[in-house]
Amino acid sequence: MPRDLPNSKDTELLNRARRVVPNGVWGHMATRAIGPGFPQFFSRSDGCRVWDADGNEYIDFMCAWGPNVLGYRNAAVDNAALAQMKSADIGNGPTEVMVELAELLVDTVDHADWALFQKNGTDATTTCVTVARAATGRRKILAARGSYHGAVPWCSPSLVGVTAEDRANLIQFDYNDTASLVAAVAEAGSDLAAIILTAFKHDVQRDQALPDAAFLMAARQACDRTGAALILDDVRAGFRLDVRGSWARYGVKPDLAAYSKAIANGWPLACVAGVESLREAAGKIFTTGSFWYGAAAMAAAVATIKILRETDALKKTAAMGERFREGLAQAAARHGYRLRQTGPVQMPMVLFEGDQDLAIGNAFCAAGLRHGIYMHPRHSMFLCAAHEAADIDRALEAVDRAFSDIAAAGFHPH
Amino acid sequence: MPRDLPNSKDTELLNRARRVVPNGVWGHMATRAIGPGFPQFFSRSDGCRVWDADGNEYIDFMCAWGPNVLGYRNAAVDNAALAQMKSADIGNGPTEVMVELAELLVDTVDHADWALFQKNGTDATTTCVTVARAATGRRKILAARGSYHGAVPWCSPSLVGVTAEDRANLIQFDYNDTASLVAAVAEAGSDLAAIILTAFKHDVQRDQALPDAAFLMAARQACDRTGAALILDDVRAGFRLDVRGSWARYGVKPDLAAYSKAIANGWPLACVAGVESLREAAGKIFTTGSFWYGAAAMAAAVATIKILRETDALKKTAAMGERFREGLAQAAARHGYRLRQTGPVQMPMVLFEGDQDLAIGNAFCAAGLRHGIYMHPRHSMFLCAAHEAADIDRALEAVDRAFSDIAAAGFHPH
Repeated sequence: MPRDLPNSKDTELLNRARRVVPNGVWGHMATRAIGPGFPQFFSRSDGCRVWDADGNEYIDFMCAWGPNVLGYRNAAVDNAALAQMKSADIGNGPTEVMVELAELLVDTVDHADWALFQKNGTDATTTCVTVARAATGRRKILAARGSYHGAVPWCSPSLVGVTAEDRANLIQFDYNDTASLVAAVAEAGSDLAAIILTAFKHDVQRDQALPDAAFLMAARQACDRTGAALILDDVRAGFRLDVRGSWARYGVKPDLAAYSKAIANGWPLACVAGVESLREAAGKIFTTGSFWYGAAAMAAAVATIKILRETDALKKTAAMGERFREGLAQAAARHGYRLRQTGPVQMPMVLFEGDQDLAIGNAFCAAGLRHGIYMHPRHSMFLCAAHEAADIDRALEAVDRAFSDIAAAGFHPH
Repeated sequence: MPRDLPNSKDTELLNRARRVVPNGVWGHMATRAIGPGFPQFFSRSDGCRVWDADGNEYIDFMCAWGPNVLGYRNAAVDNAALAQMKSADIGNGPTEVMVELAELLVDTVDHADWALFQKNGTDATTTCVTVARAATGRRKILAARGSYHGAVPWCSPSLVGVTAEDRANLIQFDYNDTASLVAAVAEAGSDLAAIILTAFKHDVQRDQALPDAAFLMAARQACDRTGAALILDDVRAGFRLDVRGSWARYGVKPDLAAYSKAIANGWPLACVAGVESLREAAGKIFTTGSFWYGAAAMAAAVATIKILRETDALKKTAAMGERFREGLAQAAARHGYRLRQTGPVQMPMVLFEGDQDLAIGNAFCAAGLRHGIYMHPRHSMFLCAAHEAADIDRALEAVDRAFSDIAAAGFHPH
């Protein structure tokens, strides 16, 4: 293995952080779960590149875990937000840009007749569930086992600090398993309020899977038959796969969809988009937050969505994802490793065959870091429109060296 | 009454908004509940002034419902955030400013040994509750009837779309009523996880009340005796009354406190600050959000808190609040109206004696708008450090004219 990258600043920051933040870092960005070699703190981001606190540069395949879709510090987006901020960001009510953004979303997102805005993806999924319950007067929410819908008690992947009552109305099924969905619908019976589904199966540390068309249709039909709401949790995939919504290509329309992450290219915003028949219910619930009308993030969203509509940004991102996947597969084959690359090419999951404890994946990503590429061993990765062919080719050189490193270190193919 | 202010742009925006947003506007900033005359859309904010969509200018006593504590578009705060944004806002992990902010909070907030960051006040109160349950292994949360702790099912002021199970572990008592608190503690028995209290009683459309010292002490003692957590919901009052936390003056330390609104002078951020004994539990729960490590808002918070610590901003705000309250009382007396002005002078509540349906209050605030002052008839108002004596005196002239208007319109004192 080559010598480790400089990390004295990262170590210093983590030691300081541990004194004033539980564990130093919390949530999905804490790297302690994925082993040594991952920098925890960052100092700069630009285009498709990030720099850690010690100044080490990486071609980035996490894109801030999704928000970066056009490239970090996209000038058009940031200038739109900063221009809005010069007149008004937060005030005693919304600004014109809220109307403009809602109009743009209704014109852009396939099923959308109206929109509501929030700050977190979890705000959006929780609002969807509340609207569905308000509309139906029912309680049960069906969600797929292992799907991530947020980090609050009703849906958190962790049960620490969560009560049984918080989960009393959650019924689980298996993604893409129509029989298990039908059984869950039957279990909910006349109390079924909604079925919530991620855009595709993108669970942590599992092979990803596109939605099976028949499965999506079964979910749609179950909702049509029972009057429940079909909720698309498009927080992670939305505005990255298809600007019309991630199910547009399947011809299945949700009743409600939750967006966040990429919607404003990194400016904090979330959105619920819904159909006409749920407008009244959406107008009856109480949902709000101190910063939800912040106009700068909304101006950023308008600029982001316009670029996604008017340019080939997403087509290019898919092409770069394809280039990365193919190159990665070839490099793995050269070195005798068997990879499972799953999900859309713009949101790759890369797992090593037989790597139950992720030892190979962790070592591979750590080696990639030393060669200037930031990947994740067990979570969806992300490409953005700032990835150019030269960046992908440079990343594939790093990947090749990373395979050599792990082979030399004794991580043999299983 | 003088002629109404121009509002054609506001009307146009509201009509457009109604097509693409349920009711056009949602949540606490929707003005339809407070009668005609209130502009719904804004175009500009600066210092202690806001301009509506039609360009009408107001001396503002809502401060974006709390976030504005130093003045809208405070240059020091905004420049700190924008400078941070030039290197990194959102990335694959936190930046150094997260550590700096946590250190500053621990050094500033009376009880704080650690901090966690979020985006909404509701994120912070929900995280407090989850930490308390993780620490105790218990379920019951005690909250005061009428207190606002957020807009999600466990605490929302509306039950539309909320299930009975969402509220199964919530027990209510009356703020400042020790006997009712003691009864609630007894009801929770060995399942008491936490007592949550706002900094003072600031319920909508009610007289506000400072916390009774004996009541706070009873809450503290109940938690000490049972091992439950005392949670200060300082979202609305925090960093406006006292930079050390709103209970510092009472000598009662909470175990957990939730902050948001004023913490970054309008940039979206929230925070949980906790004591050492809850650090381990806080490190065990899973709480996260896509934008929670956003560095620009954190840099804004560092700048805001430093200004609050190093200048007389809050002292001045209190003095201006006192000047406004006294002038308002004198003006009311001159015109024969009896007001009830309650709560801290920096966060005034102004109700008219005998005005059960708020007809007088609504008319008074609507008249104030016509004379260039933005007040709220039934919610805490807010002063900020950008309110100068000349602004208050100008506002008091507007108030005087507003009293004349409502007297002329037949709104007689009861």
